[in-house]
Amino acid sequence: IAQIDVGATQIDKGGYRHFMAKEIAEQPVVLGDALSHYIKGDRIVLPEALDFRDVDRLTLVGCGTASLAAYVGRYWFESLAGLPCDLDVASEFRYREPPLSPKSWALFVSQSGETADTLAALHYARDKVAKTIGVVNVGTSAIARDADIALPTLAGIEVGVASSKAFTCQLAVLAVLAVKAAHDRGRLTDAELRAHLDDLRALPGLLNQALGISDECRRLAGWLSEAQDVLYLGRGALYPVALEGALKLKELSYIHAEGYASGELKHGPIALVDRNVPVVVVAPRDALFDKTVSNMQEVMARHGQVLLISDAEGIEAGGHGARATLRMPSGGGLFQPILYAVPMQYLAYHTAVAKGTDVDQPRNLAKSVTVE
Amino acid sequence: IAQIDVGATQIDKGGYRHFMAKEIAEQPVVLGDALSHYIKGDRIVLPEALDFRDVDRLTLVGCGTASLAAYVGRYWFESLAGLPCDLDVASEFRYREPPLSPKSWALFVSQSGETADTLAALHYARDKVAKTIGVVNVGTSAIARDADIALPTLAGIEVGVASSKAFTCQLAVLAVLAVKAAHDRGRLTDAELRAHLDDLRALPGLLNQALGISDECRRLAGWLSEAQDVLYLGRGALYPVALEGALKLKELSYIHAEGYASGELKHGPIALVDRNVPVVVVAPRDALFDKTVSNMQEVMARHGQVLLISDAEGIEAGGHGARATLRMPSGGGLFQPILYAVPMQYLAYHTAVAKGTDVDQPRNLAKSVTVE
Repeated sequence: IAQIDVGATQIDKGGYRHFMAKEIAEQPVVLGDALSHYIKGDRIVLPEALDFRDVDRLTLVGCGTASLAAYVGRYWFESLAGLPCDLDVASEFRYREPPLSPKSWALFVSQSGETADTLAALHYARDKVAKTIGVVNVGTSAIARDADIALPTLAGIEVGVASSKAFTCQLAVLAVLAVKAAHDRGRLTDAELRAHLDDLRALPGLLNQALGISDECRRLAGWLSEAQDVLYLGRGALYPVALEGALKLKELSYIHAEGYASGELKHGPIALVDRNVPVVVVAPRDALFDKTVSNMQEVMARHGQVLLISDAEGIEAGGHGARATLRMPSGGGLFQPILYAVPMQYLAYHTAVAKGTDVDQPRNLAKSVTVE
Repeated sequence: IAQIDVGATQIDKGGYRHFMAKEIAEQPVVLGDALSHYIKGDRIVLPEALDFRDVDRLTLVGCGTASLAAYVGRYWFESLAGLPCDLDVASEFRYREPPLSPKSWALFVSQSGETADTLAALHYARDKVAKTIGVVNVGTSAIARDADIALPTLAGIEVGVASSKAFTCQLAVLAVLAVKAAHDRGRLTDAELRAHLDDLRALPGLLNQALGISDECRRLAGWLSEAQDVLYLGRGALYPVALEGALKLKELSYIHAEGYASGELKHGPIALVDRNVPVVVVAPRDALFDKTVSNMQEVMARHGQVLLISDAEGIEAGGHGARATLRMPSGGGLFQPILYAVPMQYLAYHTAVAKGTDVDQPRNLAKSVTVE
């Protein structure tokens, strides 16, 4: 594992105890930067070559947190644009050599733009698909150079090894692309387009409100830091957010956290659940909320201790019996995964601080993985 | 969660301590039954409607262990037949309402054939695709009835709640289908077809040899049963086998096991690794073996304790520094995932016995999940 020197010591923590705390708090600003780069008024500004009318399929590839941004993206591209997606982690994608349609596009997500497996995946795909797209934070990187089109995520330098603001900015770019795809493919009226853009533009403000849950996450960290195991559950586009929450907790606090699709819990993993296993449920009140509440009740019937993260309506409707709840602002429409990244980050961050682990440089990890 | 009465008390354990031990040991026989049902001499015998020449894509859906059989199937269909596949757990598939091509087929895997989410996924897909296929163990089930084509897995009644022989028989049917698809699509010469069929026919004998590792798994169970956390790693078609190994250990022993693609470990989860975390590496000596050895070395450099499961050549080449090795028979060609299911089962089984958990009726689980 090689380490790229990002000049961490030169960069200021700006009064925060850790770079990661600063980077979490920067998200309303950098997300606003990313969105205003790609959205001008009621218009999406993307390279002209990105016309989604002729593409028959989109392949999304990344590693670690970037693969989870891609996973959220899949839900958006499929539900908004009706564009079927394939998704894989780069190390599997490159070696299984999947059949790719020449009319398809392939999109690669990487903070550093140097991730070795993702770069190799791009090289595998580029002669086989109509277009390759890199969604990268470092505009001078190999993936930015080798992709047909490079889209910057504009998160600014991220020093914390565990990604925070780079993730939400990756999501922002994917959201803009999915809305563009939906519009290009005749799936949105102009009014619907405007409504989605309004939802996106509301996110920096909502994210700013969401930062207010930091104190409550700090309070919950006492509980989580005692746990050996934590499960994270979500449905739909919140399922990869649950995966990201688990990955973040694992990376920062070394607690064995694992994410599951809420509906999969009963097909095996619920055997793990007892009173010592906190179960974090990521569930804004949406069309699938009642299903998730019934999964929560299965957990509680087995003495699982639930932390429900939802909006006011969700907590009102489903919070009974939960050990704790975290109230998120309402709003954001389909793009709530961006908002719900914040409690994932703060829970992991404060739990790590409570455990005394090295938040900005977790053991065994490197910021940019430039070997296979 | 509802429980179907499978008449467990009427069925004999045949001298074994648990139904699961009996069902693991039955695999050479039932796998032979399944294979000889679908392969006669050099000919694959499947319903005529299963002509893979016109299908443009295959969607594979299941829950729990059945979803992992589908996951292995994806590797086979893509690599052997060049047939692009989509894969999802049923609870996500049915609600995300993925765009489906009218020229595609959708295949649903379920032991009971009554799994509520999988049945709902079948109902979602049936008007949208050209053909639906059910791969089920219970021929009179709802999925068998509602799919256009039902293919029995012929594993016989499975009493243990955690699936063993049903999984390997699901894999056998998927393997036969993938070979058929490859042949239909002009990807195999007659000689190659025969070679794959020979590999498949060798499996019951190889599985019988593999049963011999039970004693060694019992010896290793002392170590695993002390662990709080276990990681399972694999690449390619062995990656879902690693996922199945982790699921099995979780279900039976309540130890928090998690499976990862070997190449993903360094993108986060390696933070978990210290000397208390056994890392089970499922890696026959194949084209990706050297990559996996380098992932193992990263684990060992962080004092992770590796259990390498490989063939004689793999253990010779990569076993240095591992805490323990399990030697599997060589052979089986592309269909080694069927063989490597056995150590996954025995490790979980013996660890559960060592811990004194209820092997045949793990807490919180039901054999057939007929509610969402």
